[in-house]
Amino acid sequence: MINLEILKQLSVKTPSKIVMLVFDGLGGLPDPETGKTELETASTPNLDRLAAEGVCGLANPVSPGITPGSAPGHLSLFGYDLTQYIVGRGVLEALGIDFELAEGDVAARCNFCTVDENGVITDRRAGRIASEKSAELCKRLRQITIEGVEIFVLPVREHRFAVVFRGSELSGNVEDTDPQQAGLMPKKAVPRSGDAERTAEIINEFTTKAKSLLTDSVPANMVLFRGISQHPNLPQMSDTFKLNPAAIATYPMYRGLAKLVGMEVLATGATFADELSTLSSHWDNHDFFYVHIKQTDSSGEDGDFQRKVRVIADADQLLPQLMELIPDVLVVSADHSTPAVLKGHSWHPVPALIRSRYCRVDEVKEFSEKACAAGGLSTISSTDIMPLAMANALKLNRFGA
Amino acid sequence: MINLEILKQLSVKTPSKIVMLVFDGLGGLPDPETGKTELETASTPNLDRLAAEGVCGLANPVSPGITPGSAPGHLSLFGYDLTQYIVGRGVLEALGIDFELAEGDVAARCNFCTVDENGVITDRRAGRIASEKSAELCKRLRQITIEGVEIFVLPVREHRFAVVFRGSELSGNVEDTDPQQAGLMPKKAVPRSGDAERTAEIINEFTTKAKSLLTDSVPANMVLFRGISQHPNLPQMSDTFKLNPAAIATYPMYRGLAKLVGMEVLATGATFADELSTLSSHWDNHDFFYVHIKQTDSSGEDGDFQRKVRVIADADQLLPQLMELIPDVLVVSADHSTPAVLKGHSWHPVPALIRSRYCRVDEVKEFSEKACAAGGLSTISSTDIMPLAMANALKLNRFGA
Repeated sequence: MINLEILKQLSVKTPSKIVMLVFDGLGGLPDPETGKTELETASTPNLDRLAAEGVCGLANPVSPGITPGSAPGHLSLFGYDLTQYIVGRGVLEALGIDFELAEGDVAARCNFCTVDENGVITDRRAGRIASEKSAELCKRLRQITIEGVEIFVLPVREHRFAVVFRGSELSGNVEDTDPQQAGLMPKKAVPRSGDAERTAEIINEFTTKAKSLLTDSVPANMVLFRGISQHPNLPQMSDTFKLNPAAIATYPMYRGLAKLVGMEVLATGATFADELSTLSSHWDNHDFFYVHIKQTDSSGEDGDFQRKVRVIADADQLLPQLMELIPDVLVVSADHSTPAVLKGHSWHPVPALIRSRYCRVDEVKEFSEKACAAGGLSTISSTDIMPLAMANALKLNRFGA
Repeated sequence: MINLEILKQLSVKTPSKIVMLVFDGLGGLPDPETGKTELETASTPNLDRLAAEGVCGLANPVSPGITPGSAPGHLSLFGYDLTQYIVGRGVLEALGIDFELAEGDVAARCNFCTVDENGVITDRRAGRIASEKSAELCKRLRQITIEGVEIFVLPVREHRFAVVFRGSELSGNVEDTDPQQAGLMPKKAVPRSGDAERTAEIINEFTTKAKSLLTDSVPANMVLFRGISQHPNLPQMSDTFKLNPAAIATYPMYRGLAKLVGMEVLATGATFADELSTLSSHWDNHDFFYVHIKQTDSSGEDGDFQRKVRVIADADQLLPQLMELIPDVLVVSADHSTPAVLKGHSWHPVPALIRSRYCRVDEVKEFSEKACAAGGLSTISSTDIMPLAMANALKLNRFGA
């Protein structure tokens, strides 16, 4: 792949508009009875027409055989080399609850847990206390103050919550305090590098204060830290691609990822129809739109083949609304595969189509995993999609003399 | 490609079993009369069925256009990035005669040669003396002792032998003493780095002592060193992939390469049928089996198109025995192409198939170079095959949050 520094040198601002439509977890595996994947089963006349008018291929989000999480799956679609740009689990947790993470912030996923009178963990999840109880305890922990650092204690769900530290010279390079099994004491936060010593101290001080605030709240009488990580300070799409990008996504984590790369997150409703109205009403204000459909992934995660088929078919029916806006470049792809038969993300490459006036149309007439395997894009890395979209929008100058 | 360090973080131990069947030099070129390659000519109903049930593609062992030797061809199949992990020729020579090379050992390919009274080389191969004579002279050279280093002098064939030095602080970073042409004196061994000075001295001392031991043995009255190289100390598959891997190969060099990556080498017979019995009798003890068929390569090297066709067809007939073991993942591929029309290794990508319950079956119904070119794996790097095999065995966790 070409690196972002080179793309930054080549990219130019033009009025042309790109829409990147991401069906989360779109790629699938065949139903054993029919031999057809979810996408092959769904009735998709509009996607098929777009495939026929565009150029298709398959894309590996990370590398063949590697199953991506949501962050690497999306960042690669946005053009970022994943070996270089890592988004930590704590950061993702904070993004997932719509927290406005700022540069320099360090975030962690936390658990309420149960410890006995000797401080030994007896339940890492505090009996999965109710979310309401958890929110109440988070409120209590907000009393904690530590010199020189602002602290956000954020409920997530059941025993899970997030903590964000804001201040100068923090680092995410700190080991978990969660020993990952009951029968052990919570670990001290240990820095993995010299510049993380202060952050480790802060986490240890927070933990000590939390313990004394929680003594009476058995089973949730202690806290554990995991996935401690810092805002990744990613290059911004406005800078790299000279775009004024917008994100239309109903789930907080995807809005958060979009924010990390500098997209403006547009308020929208819960359905794809809502997202399309949002797209339409903001059409004049941006030159790049990332539109995210979540339900293809969640139905795949649930192992619900037929629901995933319906989500795809329903979205397909609404595509003419999108095409009426006449985007100069339309990309349809996915962040990763989520085959219903695997009930989870998988390593399989995702179908990808690019339709523009200059896309060199291939022989593919159907948007499906099999058909895309024979497409004119061949099998590429997902990180190639953004440069291809930019090129098709005539937004990239030539490379070299 | 994804690096081994990341694969190590992602890989998990599970009971599923992977078989990697390597037809050495399988890829071919068409017979000018029929227009069909060796693989396309051979009757291969079983391979064709596996192709239909699996996902196919082509794989480049190194990079398009690059013809690999046996070591890079195999190491890339085992997942190793060849720009990072190099196996030297001396090491390969020692492995090829079944020598038990240890970590830190430095090995070299050596020639007996003829020098005149002025020490000038008149024949770099000492008239290709008989192997028996050569073995006798090797025995004589075993008298040589050098302070602080253990020396192994190992006959290979005709004028060729190998020398292995064992001791502390050795290095393979030493220039050849073979000037590559007659009419010149043997060169002094010259270190290419500071840490190789001692090794260069050892080789020069060995050469001086060999010369005086060989004065009466014209035409084999001097020795030349080439391919001086150190045991590469490769990451072990048990560590990288959490596998307990076994190798079934009839030729020493392949057993040696397997040892380098930490496979247990199983004793086996001379034929593929023997190899399959070995596979069957050790089935319960390992979760990864590398099975090597040599004769596809040797018939190709001999330019014997029809013999290569027969080797392929004969192996195909035995495949049902392999499939009765019900491997969770079967990989069939090659280390490189050896087209009979070229009588040697070539740069052409090799056919590859992966069959598992989760492989996303493609449209390929025949295991051939042409059919694989349209397969769902597309054209990948051979180094992607191990991650794909691991993924299909559900032995890789997801990457990133």
